[in-house]
Amino acid sequence: MNDIDIEILKGIANQLRIHSITATTAAGSGHPTSCCSAADVVAALFFSQMRFDPKNPHYYNNDRFILSKGHAAPLLYAVWAELGVIPVDELLKLRQFGCDLEGHPTPRLPFVDVATGSLGQGLSVGVGMALCARLDKLDYRTYVLMGDGECSEGSVWEAAALAGYNQLNNLIAVVDVNRLVQSDPTPLQHNLNAYKDRFESFGWRTEEIDGHDLEEILEVLAAVGLGNQPLVLLAKTLKGAGISFLQDKEGWHGKALSPEEAQRAIAELQPSAKSGIGRPIAPPSQLPAPNNAAPGSYPALAYNLGDQVATREAFGNALLRIGGVDPRIVALDGDTKNSTYSDKFLKKFPERFTECYIAEQNMVGVATGFAVRGKVPFASTFATFFSRAFDQVRVAGISRANIKLVGSHVGVSIGEDGPSQMGLEDLAMMRAVAGSTVLYPSDAVSAEKLMEQMAMHAGPCFLRTSRPKSAVIYNNDEAFPIGGAKVLRQAAGDKATVVAAGVTLTEALKAADALKNEGINITVIDAYSIKPLGKDVILAAARKTGNQVVTVEDHYPEGGLGDAVAGELSVEGVKVHKLAVFELPRSGKPHELLAHYGIDAAAIAKKVKSLE
Amino acid sequence: MNDIDIEILKGIANQLRIHSITATTAAGSGHPTSCCSAADVVAALFFSQMRFDPKNPHYYNNDRFILSKGHAAPLLYAVWAELGVIPVDELLKLRQFGCDLEGHPTPRLPFVDVATGSLGQGLSVGVGMALCARLDKLDYRTYVLMGDGECSEGSVWEAAALAGYNQLNNLIAVVDVNRLVQSDPTPLQHNLNAYKDRFESFGWRTEEIDGHDLEEILEVLAAVGLGNQPLVLLAKTLKGAGISFLQDKEGWHGKALSPEEAQRAIAELQPSAKSGIGRPIAPPSQLPAPNNAAPGSYPALAYNLGDQVATREAFGNALLRIGGVDPRIVALDGDTKNSTYSDKFLKKFPERFTECYIAEQNMVGVATGFAVRGKVPFASTFATFFSRAFDQVRVAGISRANIKLVGSHVGVSIGEDGPSQMGLEDLAMMRAVAGSTVLYPSDAVSAEKLMEQMAMHAGPCFLRTSRPKSAVIYNNDEAFPIGGAKVLRQAAGDKATVVAAGVTLTEALKAADALKNEGINITVIDAYSIKPLGKDVILAAARKTGNQVVTVEDHYPEGGLGDAVAGELSVEGVKVHKLAVFELPRSGKPHELLAHYGIDAAAIAKKVKSLE
Repeated sequence: MNDIDIEILKGIANQLRIHSITATTAAGSGHPTSCCSAADVVAALFFSQMRFDPKNPHYYNNDRFILSKGHAAPLLYAVWAELGVIPVDELLKLRQFGCDLEGHPTPRLPFVDVATGSLGQGLSVGVGMALCARLDKLDYRTYVLMGDGECSEGSVWEAAALAGYNQLNNLIAVVDVNRLVQSDPTPLQHNLNAYKDRFESFGWRTEEIDGHDLEEILEVLAAVGLGNQPLVLLAKTLKGAGISFLQDKEGWHGKALSPEEAQRAIAELQPSAKSGIGRPIAPPSQLPAPNNAAPGSYPALAYNLGDQVATREAFGNALLRIGGVDPRIVALDGDTKNSTYSDKFLKKFPERFTECYIAEQNMVGVATGFAVRGKVPFASTFATFFSRAFDQVRVAGISRANIKLVGSHVGVSIGEDGPSQMGLEDLAMMRAVAGSTVLYPSDAVSAEKLMEQMAMHAGPCFLRTSRPKSAVIYNNDEAFPIGGAKVLRQAAGDKATVVAAGVTLTEALKAADALKNEGINITVIDAYSIKPLGKDVILAAARKTGNQVVTVEDHYPEGGLGDAVAGELSVEGVKVHKLAVFELPRSGKPHELLAHYGIDAAAIAKKVKSLE
Repeated sequence: MNDIDIEILKGIANQLRIHSITATTAAGSGHPTSCCSAADVVAALFFSQMRFDPKNPHYYNNDRFILSKGHAAPLLYAVWAELGVIPVDELLKLRQFGCDLEGHPTPRLPFVDVATGSLGQGLSVGVGMALCARLDKLDYRTYVLMGDGECSEGSVWEAAALAGYNQLNNLIAVVDVNRLVQSDPTPLQHNLNAYKDRFESFGWRTEEIDGHDLEEILEVLAAVGLGNQPLVLLAKTLKGAGISFLQDKEGWHGKALSPEEAQRAIAELQPSAKSGIGRPIAPPSQLPAPNNAAPGSYPALAYNLGDQVATREAFGNALLRIGGVDPRIVALDGDTKNSTYSDKFLKKFPERFTECYIAEQNMVGVATGFAVRGKVPFASTFATFFSRAFDQVRVAGISRANIKLVGSHVGVSIGEDGPSQMGLEDLAMMRAVAGSTVLYPSDAVSAEKLMEQMAMHAGPCFLRTSRPKSAVIYNNDEAFPIGGAKVLRQAAGDKATVVAAGVTLTEALKAADALKNEGINITVIDAYSIKPLGKDVILAAARKTGNQVVTVEDHYPEGGLGDAVAGELSVEGVKVHKLAVFELPRSGKPHELLAHYGIDAAAIAKKVKSLE
């Protein structure tokens, strides 16, 4: 870059500041000072450094940009206005209902890959993208703009560790060290050296820069891609930079300027601002596009009725089977791969497997990164440990990211390991994610078929698998559409409809046999699709059993199968009797626990008999 | 310590190994090799270093010990057997149903403060305890034994950062660097230097030691408490240490030895094992006990009907009011204190406030640490950001920890900031925690009174507060018992019972007024207690309105108020019509969003009119 270029970039940076101030003042809310601190770095990245086609933001080999500090959304929108993609007038509709320029970025905008705004998540997504570039043999780079405040989030260090371990030199983070967070100075304030020590100890190359010195910014950016480490620019900046009465002052976080204040600020910025410059940078390099085509079909199954197979193992079998013909599929695990059985996939396709170690937040973020690059990532761990990553799953829901989560070791049926390892709240959690699909197979065939459904369904999905072995009860060609349910036992005069899934379906079938010996018949339904619920099937059955429904689940009573059925069918006059784990469980043998907490065959039979 | 002492400690360590192996072999499951790696360090801590009264494990000035690597539970149980607190025979009942020696430790045992087993949480709890010791002017120390695998969890680095920032020299961590996790070697294997760099960059003093050299262990422990930094011992160990055929071998994680293997292992350990030695260490120092007495009552309120006060602000007022007379109360926030209004408490009681910065997992863990030391910690942030800490909240539930969580900015009623900031799944999450209480006030009086209830109620509680101001609708002396509900409108011939809380209660009252003008009357209920639900009140009202109930909530439809009511009352034949946020929302003005997503007064009126 020559001197003129630098002057132009300075001018663009100030124009971005002006847009950010104007838009937030028009909206009456927002974070203009958080935009101003990052304006110079962002101008350098978008108008000098990054290789991308602004007209085709989804192009597979564009450099990626993640605004992890999502509250600086107006700055990002300003960039795309200056790139000519958003009309400048549109910026004045910031935060208005119906306008996609929301308070924090979401993928409703074509140039936004993932929703941000819940801090400390962007770097994990960036790690996923950088790993994906390597897998796809593409040379795009992933840039992540972070705030200094969000570096307090542990998820940042999970991501940093995995990036360092995998030597992702195609990943570049910028920390906008503006010293001030919402309510206080940050713990490290402007101590760049402390950030440097932290990132270096996690395997990163670091560069300390003045985040308002464009010459210095461009100089360090020129060395991007060198070496075998991820790179972080530690940019010392001032919140509200460029405006004398805002710069480095406390009390200005998340506040729009009044029209008078905005006018004064713009008066300071305007003389050196430059607009409508365009972008002199070369488009991304031409490399073959990755093969992200879904296959027409998957290989057939070959189970025998009665085979004893745990659904967690069937998941592992399915991953291998469908992964063999579906190039989109990648797998991730959090050091549980020999329990979840994702190691079957690792052994066959090591290059498509990411060991995330014991860091579930990052694992979900990395999966999201793969998903937005066209992959179908399956991330597995014990179901209850996804609670560690609930915020990441929640945000994946906002992003409508195509991630597939598989949680094993659910409920008291895991036995001796005790409550800390038992997934007893995972259905409640996963149901409450926007746009989620929640599936719960009871045998190997349904587990495998639901894996196919997940791979073909767009959006976040959760599969709940069990630790104990159970008998194969379905034929290999049985279909399990999302939103369905299976009637396994039904006869005229049935006393009640028992709705179950997973280990409790086995118990329900046992209960049906036992009750039959006593002359009582029941309908048994496999509710393999928890969300969307197989409502019509359950309702039709309930109608034939006097609206009496018993739900039985290896889960706490809140937010699980029982609540799902009652929540949808009470309006139809259906009476839902819930059997669930109503107290904090303890260690013991699986059958002892199923009995003690009242979700085994005997408990089901007893409940049915008690109905009038 | 002299040479003989060291020989004794070595003997104790081997005895602990023998107990760990014997117990897990008897149980047929467990993690004996994870016990063996830490046996020497644990022997040194419990039989030489720590100052505590084994007969009175809850004594307020005992040194604390947290087994963060909870899967080494048999080692901890072995210690307490050797201390004479557990009969040695009891160890053989490990993991059996009904025995408190569970697969992972829980506070069912008097010497366990918090449940562990979900990795990476112990250090946060330790930070809370260390902060509490400082607050209470006690000189007990907190020791946390961590695994190397769990250092991949970001929560560890959140805790490390806060400990370093607060210079907690009464906190000592030991990392048992045994190189092997469940499915692989750890990313850092035996690279102690990398751990050293990481902890030092987070403000810790580090000591690299051979974790099987008792002389070295005791030497570094002698320097505990010096300086003004937390201390971490980085102990290089071997998984399965002391047993030739297990030591440092992959494939032995989480596997009990067969009886024959156990016999071989014990034969190697027995010659140098020592049992029944007792403990020569001085009891803890005598310092005044902290005042953790609950007050008899709290000061009265002074709101006026119709005052416009946000429930989040009422929370801040309550914290100040009840905190003034309740010495148990401490507060924590995650850099949102000027939005949640916890800053009111900070200004008056700075020494009882902990700024946790943007690190919610650690905040909840620190709160748990305060709680188990007799405090009543109130931790606040935006409700949706507690999803970051769901696993910590879940484990607090297993610990039956007395933590109080307060989440603000719920639902679409926050407006322009958009979905990433909206709590729309927090009720689902908090209801699904074992033993939790979930409260949701609609005005300032109920918010303040529910704060009193929370302070006096043992166990984890969640208070859901709202961003917008709302009118005070209750008199200052109204009572709000946990598990209750308030009937605000009711008359003979009411068409339906509308159950609401928070902003939707305001809307329900408006709907009642509007419907009345059309000659339609409805019952309106304030369901301020979501869990336990004010079931009897709702049922009684429903019975008078033909079992027709409309629930309306600023929350997703899964796992919230509607599911709670349907889940409990469908069995009574009550028909629950749910109004909730049925799709992913976007930015906009609060009233626009309430209308668009169908939870405002007009939507309620429309739904009521549609009922037959």
